[in-house]
Amino acid sequence: MTVFLVGAGPGDPGLVTVRGLELIRSCDALVYDVLVAAELVEEAPDDAILISRESVRQDELNDLLVELGRAGLDVVRLKGGDPFVFGRGGEEAEALTDAGIPWEVVPGISAMSAVPASAGIPVTHRGVSAQVTLVSGHSASGADLDFAQLASTPGTLVVFMGLGHLSAIADGLIAAGRDRNTPAAVVSRGTLADGRSVRGELWDIARLAADLASPALLVVGDVVAVCSRLGYASGSESVSMRAGVARS
Amino acid sequence: MTVFLVGAGPGDPGLVTVRGLELIRSCDALVYDVLVAAELVEEAPDDAILISRESVRQDELNDLLVELGRAGLDVVRLKGGDPFVFGRGGEEAEALTDAGIPWEVVPGISAMSAVPASAGIPVTHRGVSAQVTLVSGHSASGADLDFAQLASTPGTLVVFMGLGHLSAIADGLIAAGRDRNTPAAVVSRGTLADGRSVRGELWDIARLAADLASPALLVVGDVVAVCSRLGYASGSESVSMRAGVARS
Repeated sequence: MTVFLVGAGPGDPGLVTVRGLELIRSCDALVYDVLVAAELVEEAPDDAILISRESVRQDELNDLLVELGRAGLDVVRLKGGDPFVFGRGGEEAEALTDAGIPWEVVPGISAMSAVPASAGIPVTHRGVSAQVTLVSGHSASGADLDFAQLASTPGTLVVFMGLGHLSAIADGLIAAGRDRNTPAAVVSRGTLADGRSVRGELWDIARLAADLASPALLVVGDVVAVCSRLGYASGSESVSMRAGVARS
Repeated sequence: MTVFLVGAGPGDPGLVTVRGLELIRSCDALVYDVLVAAELVEEAPDDAILISRESVRQDELNDLLVELGRAGLDVVRLKGGDPFVFGRGGEEAEALTDAGIPWEVVPGISAMSAVPASAGIPVTHRGVSAQVTLVSGHSASGADLDFAQLASTPGTLVVFMGLGHLSAIADGLIAAGRDRNTPAAVVSRGTLADGRSVRGELWDIARLAADLASPALLVVGDVVAVCSRLGYASGSESVSMRAGVARS
């Protein structure tokens, strides 16, 4: 019995790892996040216990994983993106370690680069950006993000879970000295069939992204402009690169 | 005919994506990096053209991809990690766009979090780090990295390709004000069977890592200490999480 903390990737079910899919297909219990592709949940064995994580608090979830592990089951804890990049996988691993339950992490594709890539934006690019900074904006009232520091950071800034606070984040960066004309993009549901992105300048990005759906990633930096050199039109567009899961 | 820029992941062949493996198995030509797992190259069809990227300059490689695409082939350009995270995939995409060759990027697992994960280090952890900064240290004479800025950056610092310059990087950060006792780790060949890691403090990390082999990642920040809470011993240890490729 082992609890596998498996990253499902950014949305497109074809972007799960081979190892992750193997584990889903052979698990006794699957505990999955709301944002995980339904196609991946369907890959679990017919007799596997399926538990949606929806409306389960993190501490309850940790207890649940310990309980399932104690019952001797092979458990897949399937999380969006990568378990260890804003995924709280470390907390689950810590709870399992404390309880003496064997666990293993199986990395997933983080939204960090896959979601910008789906909109033609490479987070690093020769001569444009050789540094990437990842932060979470889900409670960005200004107390959580160090705008003075972030505004002076070179390279590409990627903000996870910032859709609800785009104005506060853009205004905070500009007030701290970031050029208001810095290229910026918001990529919504990137890699999914209904993915969309908008591009513009930092001062205006919150208005441009007003209609976009969650989850979404904010990208700030000159790499955003590279997409036009990669054949991507400016403005708003669809960013699907959904691939489907191989049936074997 | 399409040129697919496919990320092979951090080393362990089981960490390729389902979509990436499908494309390898059906390609006409496979152009692969030296660091890509041999198991993945072997998945190409028997009659596929196999080209190692070794000793091919980037501009020649771009021309080669254009040529193969022009010949009407489905080409997989298989790269270590993720094509758009210090992978120069953007340059290849730009050359293909300029030549009018259709291309598509298929993200891979970046070493960024998978390699620290293989040593029990989550790059983000609640109450410890909510920010990750990625830089490349391959020519870190001090001219390329802005140590003053990096030394004051909160959260986790991940340095790609810095093994040859560990002393210069650690000294540069400390001289610029980073606490010399900051936890640090070097993870060599993470996710591979012969992976190893060392942990210590920033001032001493270059000495501790003197025997490690390339490729290796330097991680600086309090998350390094979290691994002891996840059941990982301190000091030097093996970090394999090799999984193998599913045969279907």
